[in-house]
Amino acid sequence: MNRKQLIEQIREKQSFLCVGLDTDISKMPKSLVERVNKEYEEEEQTYGLLYEFNMAIIDATAPYCVAYKPNLAFYEAYGLEGVAAFEETIAYLKENYPTHSIIADAKRGDIGNTSKMYARTFFEEYDVDALTVAPYMGEDSVTPFLGYEDKWVILLALTSNKGSHDFQLTESQDGERLFEKVLRRSQQWATDEQMMYVVGATQGQMFEDIRRLAPTHFLLVPGVGAQGGSLEEVCRYGMTKDCGLLVNSSRGIIYASNGEDFAEVAAEKARELQQQMAAQLARL
Amino acid sequence: MNRKQLIEQIREKQSFLCVGLDTDISKMPKSLVERVNKEYEEEEQTYGLLYEFNMAIIDATAPYCVAYKPNLAFYEAYGLEGVAAFEETIAYLKENYPTHSIIADAKRGDIGNTSKMYARTFFEEYDVDALTVAPYMGEDSVTPFLGYEDKWVILLALTSNKGSHDFQLTESQDGERLFEKVLRRSQQWATDEQMMYVVGATQGQMFEDIRRLAPTHFLLVPGVGAQGGSLEEVCRYGMTKDCGLLVNSSRGIIYASNGEDFAEVAAEKARELQQQMAAQLARL
Repeated sequence: MNRKQLIEQIREKQSFLCVGLDTDISKMPKSLVERVNKEYEEEEQTYGLLYEFNMAIIDATAPYCVAYKPNLAFYEAYGLEGVAAFEETIAYLKENYPTHSIIADAKRGDIGNTSKMYARTFFEEYDVDALTVAPYMGEDSVTPFLGYEDKWVILLALTSNKGSHDFQLTESQDGERLFEKVLRRSQQWATDEQMMYVVGATQGQMFEDIRRLAPTHFLLVPGVGAQGGSLEEVCRYGMTKDCGLLVNSSRGIIYASNGEDFAEVAAEKARELQQQMAAQLARL
Repeated sequence: MNRKQLIEQIREKQSFLCVGLDTDISKMPKSLVERVNKEYEEEEQTYGLLYEFNMAIIDATAPYCVAYKPNLAFYEAYGLEGVAAFEETIAYLKENYPTHSIIADAKRGDIGNTSKMYARTFFEEYDVDALTVAPYMGEDSVTPFLGYEDKWVILLALTSNKGSHDFQLTESQDGERLFEKVLRRSQQWATDEQMMYVVGATQGQMFEDIRRLAPTHFLLVPGVGAQGGSLEEVCRYGMTKDCGLLVNSSRGIIYASNGEDFAEVAAEKARELQQQMAAQLARL
């Protein structure tokens, strides 16, 4: 998925919503658990739950979003069955929704030869469109992820959590904060066709500072919904003429109901966000 | 593995060597590949290669080291078979070498609810002794890994790669460098019984600065061998009265030979390092 295609998808769907697949068995509807326990062999029930839940959520929300973001932590937590469910979810998306982007939220980053292995895993084996990467280890931990055609590195810049204040806001001697240094330095490694940045929706007016340094980059914005960020504020300070935003919601959509109607309620919540997004896009 | 037990192991073995299991099929001896291809079904050959190689390396090097550090990137790269080989390697270590520490080198770190999932995976499911964690997202991305009895967080402080200069050395307005802030702040979250730090062997005299801020913490030190760090220098500036060091070597041991004698040569290389370490320990 290159930049042009992504912008086209946003225009066509009138949405810049990314649905986060933080799939957690303990939050699943009883009705689904009962059905899967009947239909799957015992040793495949964990896999079955993750995969069936994802398929239902994807089918319900696909008209309202342009991207899905499975969070690796939630799959790895279920061992081999979890990893299998992650793989099959990717395969399901590729087969049925080939114009939706797939973002693997894994926050990887290591010395060069190790990052190279991660890059192969995510961009060749799983063949996802984008991967979140942590910047702490610097240039040679990030560059192995670049240079895959139409693949994206999404570098952590200013995250949505409270701990973002611990290091990311530290000012250097010339008054530059760490997240600003990350934005500035990393633009020497890649263009806005290869790199996006993670900026938490909870950061409000800080989006102005981000846009001063990265005026055209796409931003992946988690933190709307369960974490309390405001879509309107994100758009006011962060939107560009090409939209320039992918706003993620996970828990606010996929666990909006834990009844039999979980997929329909997820669709409703996704549709509500899509309509708010369409209104924002209309202002461009 | 608590601090006391770790120190005892170091005294007993006269070694503070950690063997890095960055297991890469493309670097394996032909003879092993041929044997595994005969002994394993085709759909399990990747698993078989990783597992058999690790068993051979572990059996050969166990007398000379106190810890093993499988690098998750190398297992994830082989999909489900890789993850299965990682799991079975852990199981093999636990059964046969229960006093060796197991460090999962995964460099995880995410918002609280996601870090919590990673913590469960590594400390409950896999039940490893320690996990490497990235600090960029701050306190609430790290604390979910704490509070597991006798388990360790190994936080990235000053890494061995060239990119460590990009952000880790940035000085704040009060003259504190980012890695120093990480060392200082993180000691408010955990004691030296719960936390270690990654400091690259290539950092030489910087170990003095590290020791000013973290005089008693164990340091996990990669970068001796293939990356060019010097064991002697690391010890001169970084060793404490309890040793306080776990020095890792991966490629320099496990790929020292790719002939039929790979395990014996790995044992020789590990033994050489162990003897240099014994000499350093004698100076305490």
